[in-house]
Amino acid sequence: MIDSEFNYSRPVQFHETDVMGVVHHVNYLKYFEEARVAWLTWSGMRETHFPFCDRMLAVLSSQVFHDGACRFGDHIEIRLQVRVLRLKIEFQYVITKTPSGETVARGSTLHVLVDNQLKPCRPERRFVEYVEKQKWIETLL
Amino acid sequence: MIDSEFNYSRPVQFHETDVMGVVHHVNYLKYFEEARVAWLTWSGMRETHFPFCDRMLAVLSSQVFHDGACRFGDHIEIRLQVRVLRLKIEFQYVITKTPSGETVARGSTLHVLVDNQLKPCRPERRFVEYVEKQKWIETLL
Amino acid sequence: MIDSEFNYSRPVQFHETDVMGVVHHVNYLKYFEEARVAWLTWSGMRETHFPFCDRMLAVLSSQVFHDGACRFGDHIEIRLQVRVLRLKIEFQYVITKTPSGETVARGSTLHVLVDNQLKPCRPERRFVEYVEKQKWIETLL
Amino acid sequence: MIDSEFNYSRPVQFHETDVMGVVHHVNYLKYFEEARVAWLTWSGMRETHFPFCDRMLAVLSSQVFHDGACRFGDHIEIRLQVRVLRLKIEFQYVITKTPSGETVARGSTLHVLVDNQLKPCRPERRFVEYVEKQKWIETLL
Repeated sequence: MIDSEFNYSRPVQFHETDVMGVVHHVNYLKYFEEARVAWLTWSGMRETHFPFCDRMLAVLSSQVFHDGACRFGDHIEIRLQVRVLRLKIEFQYVITKTPSGETVARGSTLHVLVDNQLKPCRPERRFVEYVEKQKWIETLL
Repeated sequence: MIDSEFNYSRPVQFHETDVMGVVHHVNYLKYFEEARVAWLTWSGMRETHFPFCDRMLAVLSSQVFHDGACRFGDHIEIRLQVRVLRLKIEFQYVITKTPSGETVARGSTLHVLVDNQLKPCRPERRFVEYVEKQKWIETLL
Repeated sequence: MIDSEFNYSRPVQFHETDVMGVVHHVNYLKYFEEARVAWLTWSGMRETHFPFCDRMLAVLSSQVFHDGACRFGDHIEIRLQVRVLRLKIEFQYVITKTPSGETVARGSTLHVLVDNQLKPCRPERRFVEYVEKQKWIETLL
Repeated sequence: MIDSEFNYSRPVQFHETDVMGVVHHVNYLKYFEEARVAWLTWSGMRETHFPFCDRMLAVLSSQVFHDGACRFGDHIEIRLQVRVLRLKIEFQYVITKTPSGETVARGSTLHVLVDNQLKPCRPERRFVEYVEKQKWIETLL
């Protein structure tokens, strides 16, 4: 479990369920993205990214591990950690149900900053410095 | 039922279902859009629209009537008719299951052409002329 | 504008945008659904519906009117009104940007209660009585 | 590139794009799923799974690697390979643009068979035997 002050919390929506009665697996990547954006705002780094400037976090790769399932009526919480790997940025996520704390999914996304022509570009200095100060747990996934 | 040579046909996808066991209602607007795009190609009008030029069919309004439900494993067929209403373009759609022919949904979308700044613009002359020659059934919805 | 104490508010998500740079039109039906569910909770009527019992609000028809567009970075607010029409339930919605108050969409959905076999069923007495006491503005759409 | 007779091919849809002008990354998991289902039909194994019986391929984990991007107007082809790992089933996928053959994404999904209560269950004998006969390239991802 990531020990961070930040968390992003939301109800599971009906339109996210499938015929198995649970949240369809593609939605976990949406949850990760929503948490990433919420974290940018929370950390004061919103202005270093689109739509405030032309830099966007393009997704190079992603992984999701499903430890459980969530259903319509559940409420979930996403925690994340972030680190800089040379020109790449990695986020790792844990999704739990609230209030039970049961882990339903873990995952990661690897990013590169791109401009509005999808050309790779350098992250802003203050963004890199901010991320480099964050705690990172090696053993999450 | 629309009497047209054109139809767009596809299987229902698993990721389109919801916990009720049927296709979630938002997908019908996706089916309409897919059929619209397929019709532009079929009619030879693809080049009069994005991404071949900067005109796009922005949606002004939409309506969907659900006469039935479809499920994972079903195959559907979308037929449509189109007309020009001054500067607006209207499409109407009927979705049936194949091979049973059972109607599952009917609907319409009203459009205006916009450029890449979302400014309304005139449709190409040959697009308007083509649409004006199409048959239109008054009593569909 | 609907004069109601209830409103459902959320940021526009990145995954809801399309190549035109705005929220793709199918998402407005998702916003309506999310508001409907939030309203059931807010009004104390959550237990009269799935997943707390086997009744669900199946969608018979829907309409959306687009008065504007919203983009990633916007924050939206959905207000709604609801009424009983014999065995049907109608919801009407207005979506505005916050804090500007600019209307981006209006719409309605018509529902029938169904059980888990999709068979129409009667709404609970206290749900009908609650809805019948709500204010309804005739001139919204 | 997977050397298989099976491939699943489809146009990129407008509703799959995002404000970056490319297909939003969550759709690649949808493409994988669509290809999986098409492969079950192609291989004659459709009847060993939902909705023909109560077994479904629940997703335990997934990975996607993005080698490129695709846009509205592109046509894509998904090839896959499949193998049995004790009680688990793994699929690997390559998505290319047609006709250029440019690879846009690679990925994998790991599954377990579950019944309609989401309880793990054994795959049908003939499904396992069929999968065991398939070619598997070790070096895809």
